[in-house]
Amino acid sequence: MISKSFWRMPVRLKDLAAHLGLSVTTVSRALAGYSDVAPETRKRVLETAEALGYRPHPLARRLRKGRTEAVGIVIPAPKGQFADPFFLELLTGIGEALGEIGLDLLVTACPPGPEELDCYRHLVEERRVDALVVARTRVRDERILYLLEKDFPFVAHGRSQGVTKPFPFLDMDGTLGFYRATVHLLELGHRRIAFIGAPPELNFARHRLEGYLWAMREVGLEPPEEYLQQGDLTEEGGLMAAEALLSLPEPPTAILAATDRMAWGVLHALKKRGLRPGQQVSLIGYDDLPFSSYTDPPLSTLRQPFREEGRRLVELLLARLEGRPVEELREVWVPELVLRGTDGPAPV
Amino acid sequence: MISKSFWRMPVRLKDLAAHLGLSVTTVSRALAGYSDVAPETRKRVLETAEALGYRPHPLARRLRKGRTEAVGIVIPAPKGQFADPFFLELLTGIGEALGEIGLDLLVTACPPGPEELDCYRHLVEERRVDALVVARTRVRDERILYLLEKDFPFVAHGRSQGVTKPFPFLDMDGTLGFYRATVHLLELGHRRIAFIGAPPELNFARHRLEGYLWAMREVGLEPPEEYLQQGDLTEEGGLMAAEALLSLPEPPTAILAATDRMAWGVLHALKKRGLRPGQQVSLIGYDDLPFSSYTDPPLSTLRQPFREEGRRLVELLLARLEGRPVEELREVWVPELVLRGTDGPAPV
Repeated sequence: MISKSFWRMPVRLKDLAAHLGLSVTTVSRALAGYSDVAPETRKRVLETAEALGYRPHPLARRLRKGRTEAVGIVIPAPKGQFADPFFLELLTGIGEALGEIGLDLLVTACPPGPEELDCYRHLVEERRVDALVVARTRVRDERILYLLEKDFPFVAHGRSQGVTKPFPFLDMDGTLGFYRATVHLLELGHRRIAFIGAPPELNFARHRLEGYLWAMREVGLEPPEEYLQQGDLTEEGGLMAAEALLSLPEPPTAILAATDRMAWGVLHALKKRGLRPGQQVSLIGYDDLPFSSYTDPPLSTLRQPFREEGRRLVELLLARLEGRPVEELREVWVPELVLRGTDGPAPV
Repeated sequence: MISKSFWRMPVRLKDLAAHLGLSVTTVSRALAGYSDVAPETRKRVLETAEALGYRPHPLARRLRKGRTEAVGIVIPAPKGQFADPFFLELLTGIGEALGEIGLDLLVTACPPGPEELDCYRHLVEERRVDALVVARTRVRDERILYLLEKDFPFVAHGRSQGVTKPFPFLDMDGTLGFYRATVHLLELGHRRIAFIGAPPELNFARHRLEGYLWAMREVGLEPPEEYLQQGDLTEEGGLMAAEALLSLPEPPTAILAATDRMAWGVLHALKKRGLRPGQQVSLIGYDDLPFSSYTDPPLSTLRQPFREEGRRLVELLLARLEGRPVEELREVWVPELVLRGTDGPAPV
C-alpha cells in the first residue's frame, strides 16, 4: 500500500480512551459533560485529555455544527441477488471510523438503475446527510457527475472515467493486481490463460482486464476473443463463464476470475468436469473473502483489506471537508497476491 | 411461514407506482409536490392515487413528524472477523422497506461487548433515531432490557429469554428447522448424529440445539456429550469442531452445523480426511447462503428469506409505532429444509 500516513492526528479520542482504560463513548460523553458520567471520571478524563494534548477533531466539530451529523452511503443492492459480502466489511469500517468521532452512517438500499440517482437526490437535496460515500464506481458514473455538479462533499470507493473534475477516492490497483497474477501464471508455464470479467460498466472490471492484457501482451500473447468472458458478480456468473471456456476446442489451462465469488463458481465448474484445480486448470480470484481459505483446494487470490479501506474513506472524506486539495486525496492501494492451492504449473 | 397478512394496507405507494408504471421515488416526489416532476405527471399521479384510494401511510407520516425520520440498527461486527454475509441482506431488506416510505436507516458498527450498550444509549438518548432494530438476539439481552426500560420503540430479529415484558420480534423457528433436519437424518438411517452449535449466548444457538435434541430423544437416543460441539460462527469454527468430532473413537455419520459458514468448514474437514460428504458423512447446515448451492457437493441446509425478513421487521416496527398490541407483533417463521448433495443414507 502507498502512504497512508499523510494525515495523522497527534492524539485521537480512541488513543485517549485506551490510555484511560475507558470506552470511547464514556470518554466522549465525559468531554461533552453528560450527567451519566461520574464527576470523578469526568475530572480524570479532562485532566488526561489536557495532559496528552488531546483536542476534539476540528472536522468532527465542524460536521457536528452541520445539520445532520451523518454521512450517507447507498448500497447498490441488485434485486433478487445477495449483495457482495465484502460490502458489509466496508460498511463496518466506515461505520466504526465515523462512530469514533461521533458521526452516524446513514444507509439507503437502492438497486442500480434509473431510480438510483433519485436516492442520491433525496439524500442531497433534503440534506439527509452532510457527505456521501459512493461505492462501486462505474466507468461512467452519473452519481459522481451529479455530486460534483452539486458540489456536494463525497469520497468514492473506486475511480471513474470521463470525469474532468478531480474528486477524492480510494481505489485498489486492480490493474497491477491482475498484471502480477497473470505474470505469475505465465511464470508457471501457462500460455492459454483466460479471463472472466465483471460487467463492463463497473470501473474495477476495466482495470482488472487491463492488468491481464498488459501481462499477456508483454510476452507477445494476444488472447483469442473467446478467452475473454464476462458474467454476473455471482457464483453462477463464474460458473457459466467457466462452462463456456471449458467447452472450447482449446480450453485454457489457467483462468483469472474478477471476484472470489465468481472464482467459487469456476471451481464448481471444474469439479463437475473432474478437473483438479491447480493441476489441470489453475485459477486465481480477487477479494480474498473468508471462505476462499476453505475451498477445495484453497483459492489463490488477491487480497484487499475491506475494513481498513472503509476507515480510510472516512479519513479522506474528513480531509475533503477540511478543504485539503482534492489532488492529495486520491489513493490507490495495491492488492496482495495470496497464493494457495489453485495455482500450479501448466500441464505438459 | 405462518400468517404474514395480519396487517395489510389496501394500496401501498409501491402498488400505486406499479400501477402508474413509474418509480416509487417519482410517485413519492409527485405526491410531495417536488418541482422536478412534470406537472402532467403529477396530475396523473394524484388522479390515480385518488382513484385507487391511496393514502400515504399514516405511520410514515407520523414518523416524519418526529425529529429524525430514521430507524437505527447496530451491526454486531466482531473485531477482525467478517460479519455474517446474511446481515447485509437483512440490512438491504430493512433499507428498501424504509426507503419506500421515505425513512432512512442509520447504521452503527459496534462490536458485541461492554461498549455495545453505549452505542445504543447514544442512539436513544441523543435521539439519533426514532426507533431501532435489534439484530441477532441473545439469551440474556441487555440491549432489549435497556430499550424496554426506556420504553424506546424497537423490533427484534430474534427472541430472547428472561424478558418479562413482551416485545415485537420476528424470528425463525430454528427448533422446528433442526428438528426436521434431524428427523430427516434419522430416516436416512443415521444414529450417530452430532451437532455443531453456535456460541451459547446467542438465542438462535439454543433453539437449534433444542430441535436436534428433541428429534434424537423422540427416538430414544441421547447423544453423548462429545457429540455436542460448538464453535465460532466462521468456517474455522466449523472446521475445528468437525476435526474434534472426526477424531472420536466413534465418529458421527452425520453432522448438523448451526450455520452455513460453519458447514463449509465442516466440508473442508471432511475432504482433508478423504471423506465424501453425503456418503461417508452427511451434513446439513442452516442459512442457505448463495454459495451453498456451489459447494462440492452442494450443501443441504435450511433456508431463511433474509431480505423478506428485513422488510417484515419494518412492518412490525411501524405496527408497534401505530400502537398495535405487542402480543400481535411476534412472528415465528419456519425455515425450509433444502436437500441437496450432502445428506445421504447412513453408511452400513
